Amino acid sequence: MGNALVFQSDFGLQDGAVSAMYGVSCSVNPEIKIYDLTHDIPQYNIWEASYRLVQTMNYWPIGTVFVSVVDPGVGSDRRSIVARTKTNHFIITPDNGTLTHVGNIYGINELRVIDEEINRLPNSSESYTFHGRDIFAFTGARLASGIIDFQNIGPEVDPNSYIKLPVKESFTKNNSITGTIDILDIRYGSIWTNIGRTEFLKQGVNYGDIVDVKITHQGKTVFKQSVKYGKSFADVAVGEPILYVNSLDQMAVAVNQGSFTNEYGINTGIDWEIKLG
Amino acid sequence: MGNALVFQSDFGLQDGAVSAMYGVSCSVNPEIKIYDLTHDIPQYNIWEASYRLVQTMNYWPIGTVFVSVVDPGVGSDRRSIVARTKTNHFIITPDNGTLTHVGNIYGINELRVIDEEINRLPNSSESYTFHGRDIFAFTGARLASGIIDFQNIGPEVDPNSYIKLPVKESFTKNNSITGTIDILDIRYGSIWTNIGRTEFLKQGVNYGDIVDVKITHQGKTVFKQSVKYGKSFADVAVGEPILYVNSLDQMAVAVNQGSFTNEYGINTGIDWEIKLG
Amino acid sequence: MGNALVFQSDFGLQDGAVSAMYGVSCSVNPEIKIYDLTHDIPQYNIWEASYRLVQTMNYWPIGTVFVSVVDPGVGSDRRSIVARTKTNHFIITPDNGTLTHVGNIYGINELRVIDEEINRLPNSSESYTFHGRDIFAFTGARLASGIIDFQNIGPEVDPNSYIKLPVKESFTKNNSITGTIDILDIRYGSIWTNIGRTEFLKQGVNYGDIVDVKITHQGKTVFKQSVKYGKSFADVAVGEPILYVNSLDQMAVAVNQGSFTNEYGINTGIDWEIKLG
Repeated sequence: MGNALVFQSDFGLQDGAVSAMYGVSCSVNPEIKIYDLTHDIPQYNIWEASYRLVQTMNYWPIGTVFVSVVDPGVGSDRRSIVARTKTNHFIITPDNGTLTHVGNIYGINELRVIDEEINRLPNSSESYTFHGRDIFAFTGARLASGIIDFQNIGPEVDPNSYIKLPVKESFTKNNSITGTIDILDIRYGSIWTNIGRTEFLKQGVNYGDIVDVKITHQGKTVFKQSVKYGKSFADVAVGEPILYVNSLDQMAVAVNQGSFTNEYGINTGIDWEIKLG
Repeated sequence: MGNALVFQSDFGLQDGAVSAMYGVSCSVNPEIKIYDLTHDIPQYNIWEASYRLVQTMNYWPIGTVFVSVVDPGVGSDRRSIVARTKTNHFIITPDNGTLTHVGNIYGINELRVIDEEINRLPNSSESYTFHGRDIFAFTGARLASGIIDFQNIGPEVDPNSYIKLPVKESFTKNNSITGTIDILDIRYGSIWTNIGRTEFLKQGVNYGDIVDVKITHQGKTVFKQSVKYGKSFADVAVGEPILYVNSLDQMAVAVNQGSFTNEYGINTGIDWEIKLG
Repeated sequence: MGNALVFQSDFGLQDGAVSAMYGVSCSVNPEIKIYDLTHDIPQYNIWEASYRLVQTMNYWPIGTVFVSVVDPGVGSDRRSIVARTKTNHFIITPDNGTLTHVGNIYGINELRVIDEEINRLPNSSESYTFHGRDIFAFTGARLASGIIDFQNIGPEVDPNSYIKLPVKESFTKNNSITGTIDILDIRYGSIWTNIGRTEFLKQGVNYGDIVDVKITHQGKTVFKQSVKYGKSFADVAVGEPILYVNSLDQMAVAVNQGSFTNEYGINTGIDWEIKLG
């Protein structure tokens, strides 16, 4: 029956764009299993597309095909690529940085550039603005269904040749760890950092301990408080901040039943630093 | 092929949380049929989660497994439970009030507490903030697919031992019926009450009759008008209020092609009372 | 296994309405394949529902059944109809204008009025406000699954007897083409016109040429600039407007990585005219 096909985009669900991609996929294979990651990536936000892939990919079965279309350069000469990850998932995406986090954390085993002469919806060659439908969905559905193999995608290229967004590594110094605020858990206003649980625990901290948390934006202090390290939100009173291990095994800060980002004006990116301890 | 698995949460669809639950479910059973109730329950709003279940459950086939994750107490010692309803649907949820309306209206036949040692995604034991993925989706997918039976969920407990939110019953007095405003039909700004059609019709009202409608909030009158009792919105002019039987067979008030809640500042909860007649 | 069933509505995804339609469909046929076009059509906006159908229908396999429920007249005596298009897709909808664009562009081969005595969810006859669930989803699932044939829908009527919304045709005069702004590509703030690529190219324009673009609202000029005709957004600098062929082979105007509609206050409808050249 083939593998799952999982779509991500910045198209939103308000119009027909996502449905057109589904329709193309069902036309390739009426039995295909289609799912969504999200279509609410903020417009043109490649960083967030990259992060949402790393947040979810490894919970999907081996062989799952992800189609990610955040594509401000559609119709330009940017490459259309398909990556086979070290975990044996496939990611189809414009080559614009979308593979950054998956590449860093899981690794890319093989990379191919889509041959757009072959792997394109028939009769779509006059359309230059919707590769999500004409190339990515069409190719993703054929790959997931076993109509084509990875080898039929197009020429193999250096698996490290994909475009990477700048990232900063976290580091330990003088008994404190510094990292960046990578992303928000949007609905709840929590911040997720790039500091791993294992690295943090080397400080010898235990549940219930109080940790100094300092957040700076372009060097300017935005938040500085002693925060309890707990298992989950209910370990602090409603409205109180908590330092915890998030669902991706990285350090995070939330306010129990509140919004840390709203209450303290915190945002994301590599110029937002967080220091623990 | 197993039964349908239907997800509800307050996660929204903007990030990867829902997709991670899907991925876990597909990893359990690549042929599983996954659907959504909604993921736009307002954050931490257990009442609304409870209501949306009662709004939809009985339209789904017997054996359908619902996973509802509005879970402000995640990681605390609140129980994770699975209910078998009298209609033979299954609901997996934190024990926090989410079963209130289904319990009141359809009844719970059997209740089991999830044994989280057994029914947990392998290698997720260090994660305390995402039981939706690690416990509920994993267990729901296994139950819907027939990999485990209801008996394998964990120990059986008193089917009436689940947590209940406070509700008020509607009542008839002096030829008028008083009830509460339970929920909104959000998109259209209509209010849905807990007054049933059958109870209302005992007043001897017919389509086209005019009915006195009074709405109070904490005892203070917010709306007081004579409103036509009609079959559907088009029975009154655009912009006019109408009293009607909603799609759950309960009394409701709308404005034809307008928003009753916005125009009159009405909201929901047991301190919002409505009196008909 | 039957054909795909594709839902469109103005219900939003915040409550249980869409899920109730899914549940009815799965109760008809647990193996049914359900997809969405969109549920975010603005409330009561029949024009947009009509347009989204024409935007997507032909990307779906022949035999696909579309259920479109933007239905301000629910419960009135407006007809419930099923169209078989010339492309052999089926559209189930209230007869209120929703077939306008598909009828104009692809054509309707056969039209039947739903016999609501037969084609109605059992025990739903007291419900007058949710035909999406009680009639359209129920009938759509049975048609898509082959439980009923098109002939069983109800009496055949004149295939041209469906209600049509007013549209204006584009026209060429004095070396310029005038059309209307039919719809927005919402997420990106681009405008899509009713001027086809072929008609535009008769002007002898080539990629890279500069074209005079004038937009008027009820005769008043809102935008007047010389705009580059390019293949895709990246052909102009970020923030610059571009005239291009959209993914439906019609002329469109965008701002590269910006929002043309927001920046210039442009909207849609037949009183919004655009003149090229």
